[in-house]
Order: sequence, then structure tokens, then C-alpha cells
Amino acid sequence: MRVGVIGFGRTGKSVANVILENPTIRLEWVVRDTRRLEHRSVPEFFGVESCEPGVIYSRHEFSAEQLLDRSPVDVIIDFSSPNGIYYYGASAAERGVAIVSAISHYPESTLDYLRDLSAQTPVLWSPNITIGINFLMLAGRVLQRIAPHLDVQIVEEHFRDKADVSGTAKRIADELKVPASEIKSVRAGGIIGNHEVIFGFPFQTVRLRHESISREAFGNGAIFAAEQLCSLPSGWYRMEDLLMPYFLEDDPNPTALAAR
Amino acid sequence: MRVGVIGFGRTGKSVANVILENPTIRLEWVVRDTRRLEHRSVPEFFGVESCEPGVIYSRHEFSAEQLLDRSPVDVIIDFSSPNGIYYYGASAAERGVAIVSAISHYPESTLDYLRDLSAQTPVLWSPNITIGINFLMLAGRVLQRIAPHLDVQIVEEHFRDKADVSGTAKRIADELKVPASEIKSVRAGGIIGNHEVIFGFPFQTVRLRHESISREAFGNGAIFAAEQLCSLPSGWYRMEDLLMPYFLEDDPNPTALAAR
Amino acid sequence: MRVGVIGFGRTGKSVANVILENPTIRLEWVVRDTRRLEHRSVPEFFGVESCEPGVIYSRHEFSAEQLLDRSPVDVIIDFSSPNGIYYYGASAAERGVAIVSAISHYPESTLDYLRDLSAQTPVLWSPNITIGINFLMLAGRVLQRIAPHLDVQIVEEHFRDKADVSGTAKRIADELKVPASEIKSVRAGGIIGNHEVIFGFPFQTVRLRHESISREAFGNGAIFAAEQLCSLPSGWYRMEDLLMPYFLEDDPNPTALAAR
Amino acid sequence: MRVGVIGFGRTGKSVANVILENPTIRLEWVVRDTRRLEHRSVPEFFGVESCEPGVIYSRHEFSAEQLLDRSPVDVIIDFSSPNGIYYYGASAAERGVAIVSAISHYPESTLDYLRDLSAQTPVLWSPNITIGINFLMLAGRVLQRIAPHLDVQIVEEHFRDKADVSGTAKRIADELKVPASEIKSVRAGGIIGNHEVIFGFPFQTVRLRHESISREAFGNGAIFAAEQLCSLPSGWYRMEDLLMPYFLEDDPNPTALAAR
Repeated sequence: MRVGVIGFGRTGKSVANVILENPTIRLEWVVRDTRRLEHRSVPEFFGVESCEPGVIYSRHEFSAEQLLDRSPVDVIIDFSSPNGIYYYGASAAERGVAIVSAISHYPESTLDYLRDLSAQTPVLWSPNITIGINFLMLAGRVLQRIAPHLDVQIVEEHFRDKADVSGTAKRIADELKVPASEIKSVRAGGIIGNHEVIFGFPFQTVRLRHESISREAFGNGAIFAAEQLCSLPSGWYRMEDLLMPYFLEDDPNPTALAAR
Repeated sequence: MRVGVIGFGRTGKSVANVILENPTIRLEWVVRDTRRLEHRSVPEFFGVESCEPGVIYSRHEFSAEQLLDRSPVDVIIDFSSPNGIYYYGASAAERGVAIVSAISHYPESTLDYLRDLSAQTPVLWSPNITIGINFLMLAGRVLQRIAPHLDVQIVEEHFRDKADVSGTAKRIADELKVPASEIKSVRAGGIIGNHEVIFGFPFQTVRLRHESISREAFGNGAIFAAEQLCSLPSGWYRMEDLLMPYFLEDDPNPTALAAR
Repeated sequence: MRVGVIGFGRTGKSVANVILENPTIRLEWVVRDTRRLEHRSVPEFFGVESCEPGVIYSRHEFSAEQLLDRSPVDVIIDFSSPNGIYYYGASAAERGVAIVSAISHYPESTLDYLRDLSAQTPVLWSPNITIGINFLMLAGRVLQRIAPHLDVQIVEEHFRDKADVSGTAKRIADELKVPASEIKSVRAGGIIGNHEVIFGFPFQTVRLRHESISREAFGNGAIFAAEQLCSLPSGWYRMEDLLMPYFLEDDPNPTALAAR
Repeated sequence: MRVGVIGFGRTGKSVANVILENPTIRLEWVVRDTRRLEHRSVPEFFGVESCEPGVIYSRHEFSAEQLLDRSPVDVIIDFSSPNGIYYYGASAAERGVAIVSAISHYPESTLDYLRDLSAQTPVLWSPNITIGINFLMLAGRVLQRIAPHLDVQIVEEHFRDKADVSGTAKRIADELKVPASEIKSVRAGGIIGNHEVIFGFPFQTVRLRHESISREAFGNGAIFAAEQLCSLPSGWYRMEDLLMPYFLEDDPNPTALAAR
């Protein structure tokens, strides 16, 4: 699988690094906004040996059309900014290149544009693209279906200067029908990011906890999404669509399954 | 739903108490081994007002046949001992009374007997019948299907005098293909019982944690099983068979689902 | 050491039970408000064998004076109500009987009365008399002296129906100079009571966590306080005064100690 | 306070970085084993602006004598290797330069050499120089003095490939008289390093937990040690000697203190 990355900020760099280290994926290029580092390569930037090209381009040198023809890829992974999609979206869709976008927020009009593109190619948008957080949301929803009257509480912990409630915690709250105002936010020192969902039964407690070690986690999530998307038809996907199939046992008890 | 309980030891008492407090289930009777408390009632024993009979019988007074004809129930919940099933099994199966057994261990021959009964009536056997622990095992299996190379570690914590590794931890280890020898057992003071499964990704950690508050948790699990079983045909069920259907979203993305 | 207990509500019962099981302390009597159970005994009430009398009295039968003369004790442990002290305070102080009060809140005038009594006998008042919580507060203060600019956050978890922020959490917040409004309160299911203090350093996190298993913990704290108090002169003590001496090593480095 | 650092490996770099960012300490120089980066500077290496020199030297260019005369410091912080002390020890001691060594293991003969140096200058040796871990050990000892019969259990969590039980956990075990064989080691994914000490009371549990976010934590510990050492006379110190004074309240209850 050949991959191109859009964006080379802090997260883009971490993601490119994880892709480089993954032997089944080939990093063709990275496109960034500025001309800094232009024509250098990701392996050289990180000081590692690699047979993958990972050339760093500026979007000012080539159009996405030129780039995709010159150096074709199967998937584009986007960690740039809300308007990055307008650089490559149409050219990618025309060529059937799958799109994995990890942009946090899009204006509604940009989301419409993304959905339009999904008529021609598989498009996935996930503001928090880690496997762990998305698993946690889906698993939490399962437990709520089993025991609808459970108390659910959300605690998130981050470094002292993080303003506002974490967007990921708000997303979890939304999925689990917890009012966002009930999220408990701990701010202390240099905590990178922890999210815990507490499910209170009368005589037992279940906790689902996710701890971030570094932003490289986004890279593994993006690779998972890219790998899945390549074998799917054109369409609009979210991370949970890709994880959901794994929630069903390979051999469930058919009678119990049918009865529900 | 009318329920009879077999066994009135420490756990049986807790379970009977939880059933009494549940307004949608009617506790008809309890059968125990000894004649102590015979003909008293569960509500009176706990000193609570209740319109449910909850009569306490000894197995020496009536056969299960007599009892079930005189005071019919829809489900029997068994927290007695491995040979309790021989008292009521055949009579219950003949009458189509569902059986929920929470006995920890059965000899293989008794398990065969239980499976034979399941040709005539729904039979569920679950050595740890809490919703939390069974959810945790199933959720853990989901995460392993998503990310097969995850490191999985199990830590269990119990009161200082608990000998041996917890049976529940062994069960979790078995489900998640962790060698039982790798379970970490913490023994300290009066901890009632905690089980934590740690899933190590390279750049993130997911923890599923179950904390027991009291043995009443078994009661809620047994009620859940009884309610589900009443709407199922004859057959052999385990707790995970009943929980599995809740793992599937009501409206999964059909394309993603089909592709796996 | 001979002990009398004032109060036989839920906590009083747990405390009396713990005292009974402790071989170095003798439970002489319990005094309660109502005449229920009058002249029965604590061992008989709990259905245990014991050579300790533990007679249950009503405060309506005897004055504290009569009781202390008839059945003298070394310490009185009070888990009754804010006005319980007026029943026994003066009589105890006159006889040099130590007083351990675990009442949550006293009006200021009652606190003045207690302080007056402490001129004649050792008096300890501690609204949360567990060793664990008091250790946690003192240890937290140590860490704040070492690293004054640490971020400190407090999370408390209790059963769903607990109204208001936990009084213990407020006390911890007060000790650690955290605004009470910053306490994060989790309410879920049947959680008995957990308190966690999170200390955020830039590159490390320290957590002090206390988990309540049952109210018997108050009994062990009260016994600890009673034992210490018996060897102390008249005066006004708080739980931290008794714990503080243990914070100093037996053999600290004198040069380092002197330098601070 | 002027500081020189010995060692510029992974930890040495992190420590130098933390010193640079601390406004009250001036990083004069770093000495390393190889000639790589010779005569470049730490600020330039990290790409930050700074008015502190932080010159990078090789030990092959200058003797420590020459270096200390040319560019004097108040403290030397050593994150190099067990034989690093022989490069600078005697010259530092002669000039009264304090020594903070964070080397994990020394041969007994080297420890003797260090102790000899401490006759002339303050010398501190701490294999794990974080404030958090050392606080945790001391606080744990306090709790054991208060309640000598507590159950104590130690759980340490690290990345999957870490061989052997963590040295820090062994140190904690040693301090708290827990057999090293009872340490529970969790190995999973990319966990940087967590240590938890669990204290089991019959009816409550206390947990002291330390979570490492990055190796920069060693830098803050070393700075704390350096600052304290500068105001102390010649002598042999361990991290706990410096922390111990903070364990005593500024205004303890003198009666309670005297009685113990």
C-alpha cells in the first residue's frame, strides 16, 4: 500500500514516522504548506535508513493532480488543516485514491464537500483516530445497551495548561448520552492525556480507561483506517464503522442472537 | 416472572435479597439443604415488607416435583452446590422451567447431565455470573480481534487470605489466550475483588477494570440471565451468548460489516 | 484498655464490632439514645462468642456519672450525634477518661465545650477518623512543601445518590489549599467511597488514593486514636497530631535536618 | 547557581534541557566521552535561544582541573557512567564543588571513593533521582510505622521489552521490607514506567502511585538535589536525607511529638 501524507506539523511528523517504521506500507511523499524542508526526505529528516522515498513537497510547487500522476498512491492521510482537503480532494477522488482525514473540526460546508467526494472513493473522517478511544466509545455503548440504567461518568486528565474540556471527552460524552457539562476535567502537570469512563452498577463498577503515551498513537490508527479503507468500496465511513465488525464474534450462538 | 432459588448460603442470601428488591420479578420460594429457617420467609428473614412470598423450604420436606406443582415458577436460579441440580433438574426440565446455574465447578458427568436437560428447557451455566466480568471478557476479545498483536496482562486483587489465583482471572486469561502463569495476583487487606486487563499498544494503553463492591452483584447477573432465558427456546447457553447480541450496533454500516 | 462507645447506629455498630474483635481492648458498654436492645449485649447482638461484656444501655436509664462509676472505662469513643457530648463530657473529664469523638460537625459552641474539657482530659476530635485519609492529607502536605508549585487536583467517587461534595474531600481540599469548587465529584452506582489526590509534576505524576471498603475502617481509626490518647496528657488533639510523629524517621540525617 | 553536567546520552540530554529551561540555574558546560558535538553548545543543539553557555566538551580535550579553573561551577551533576567520577571527583572535591551523582550502580570500591570525597565536599548519590519515587518510598515507610501489620504489595508497569524487574521497584521493595520476589511486573506496549504501592488495611486500601511521563523527570530531581546540596556542609547524602526534613510539619503538636 502506497501512502501520501498531507501535513507535517507535530502530529504529521509523528504519523509519518510511524508509517516509515511499518514494513507493509510505503510512504511516497508528504505535502506541507511551507517551503521549509522542501525536497528533503522524511527518512533523512529523522536520521533513519529507509528504502521508502518519503519526499517532502510544498503545496506551492505542484498541484495535487501533478503529484498524484507523477507519484501515485493508494491512500492519502490528512493531518493538515480544515482547508487541506481542497488541495487534493477532487484529484484524489477522480483517481479513486482513498482518503483518511483526521482533522478535528470541519465547517459544515467542508463536510458536505467530503461527503460528495465519497461518491467516487472511500472517505473516512475521524477527529480522534486512535484505535483505543474509538474502541472505548463502542464498548461503552455496548454496556449501555446491556444495562440501560447504568450511571456513566467521564473523567479526563490533561496537562495543566490545556484550556477547555477535551474534545475527545466531549465526543465520548455525546456517544454515551452523558451531558457534556458532567465531564470531570483534571488538569495537572504534564499529563499527556487520559480518558476514563466509569460505569456504576449497584454492586460493581466497570472502568474503561485510555492512556495516551504519545501522538504516534494517531499514526497507528491512521494506518489501521487506511488498510481497511483500501478493501472497501466508495462511501462515507467513520472509525466506528471499521471497528464495529470486530465486535461480532466469529461464531455467536445463533439462537441467542436471533432472539434479540 | 416467577423465580425459585436453590441455595441460601452467603451468596444465595444476597441473591434472594436482590430478587426481592426487583419489582418485575417475584420470588416464590427458596430451597436449602438444612431445615434451619424452614417455613420462615425471605422478607421476614431480612426484616423487610414485601408482597412476595419467598417461602424458605428444606429439600427434605418436598421433592422438586411436589414443589413445582404446588408453587410453579418460570425460572430456577441455582447458587447451591454441584449436586444441587440432581434435586430439581429433571422436574424443572419436564415442566419447561428455565435453569440458571451459577455453580463454580461441575464434574464433567454433571455437565453432561445439564446439557441433556437443555434439550427440554433453556439451561444457562456461568461460574461468574456478573454482567461486568462477562462484558469485560467479551470486550477484551473484541480488542484482540482488532489488534491481534497487542500485549495483554491481567492483574487481580483480593483480600490477603485468598489462596490461589482467582478463578475469574483464570477464566479471563483463558478467553484472552494469556498463560495462566502470567496472571499477577495482589493480596492485600480486605480488598473484595478487582480484575484489570491491560492492553498495551506501542503509544497508548487501554485498561478494562472490574471492581466488586459486594456479592449482590451475582444477583443482578442472575436476574439478567433469567429474564433473557425466559424468551429463548430450549438449548445450552453461556452468559456470553446472552451478552453477545448487544455487541452489535442496531444500525451498523452494512458495507463495512460485509467487507470483513 | 477499657472502652465505652456512645452511639449504636450503623457506624457505631461497625465500630463496636471491630473493638470486640480486637484482643487488646475490652468493650465495657455501649450507650444509645433509644431503649431498643436495652440490656442485651453487643456479642449477643452480633451472634459471636466473647468474654467482653459490651452491655447495651440507654441514656435514659443511667446518667454518665452513674455508668462511669459502676463500670469504669479508660476511653470513650463517640459515634453518636453532635449533642452526645453533653451526656458524658463533664463526667468523663472529671474522671480523666480520654475522649475520642468522630462526630462530623459540631456547632462552634460545642467545639468550645470540647476544648474546655481538654483542660482536664485528653480530647481528640476527628470528623474522618480513618488512618488512611488522615495519612493521605499529611503525606499530601509533605509533597506540597517539597514542591510548592505542584498542581493538585482532587477526585472523589461515591454512590449515585450521595448529594453534595464529600465532606472528606472538602477537608482534604482545605488542607492542601485547593479551592473546594475544584473538587471533581463522580457519582456512580454503589461506590462506597474513593478519594484520589493527583499531584502533577511537569514530567511525572504522583497519585495518593484511598478506597473505602466498609465503615469498619472507622473502628480501626478510633482504636488507634484511643490507644495513643491513653498515653498522652490532657490536651486537645486532632488525628494528624497523632500521626505526625510517625512522619519523622527514627534516624534522620541530622545535618540535612538542621539545614532546613 | 552554576552547574556542569557529566554525560550527554539520552538521559544527560534530557537533564541538560531541563536545566536550560530553569531560570535560576546556569548551565556552564557539559562534558561527554566522545568528541562528537565538541565545541557546539546545548542551546544550539536543541535549537533554542539562551544566554547560558552550555558548551559541549569532550573529556579528551581538558582535564577536569583545567575545566573547573577555566569555567568554575558550584555543582556537578553526573549522568554518565560508573567510572565518570574518576574524571572529575578529586578536582571537584578540592574546590568544594558539590557532586550530584545519578549513576544506577557503582562497584563497592567506587562507592568508597565517593564517600572519601564527601569529607571535602557535599556528595549525593541517588540511583533514581526523581522527587516522586523518593517521596513515595518515604511516605510508604511512614505508613508502615503507623500500621506495622499492613499488607504491602508492589506493582510496576513498563514497556514490553523491558527485561528483569525494574531496579526502582527493587529499591522500593527493599525500603518497605517486601521480598523482591513478590514484585508484580506488568509488561505491555510502550508504557514508560509506573510504580504502585498498595497498602491493604482490613477495611480500606491506600495506593501510592508514580507515573513517569518522560526522562526529563530526572532533571527536576537533580536540580532539586543540587539546590539543596549547595547550602549543606561537606558530607554524604542520599535523596531521602534531603526530602526527610519536609516530612516534619512546621508546627507539629509538641506534646504528641514528644510522647512517641
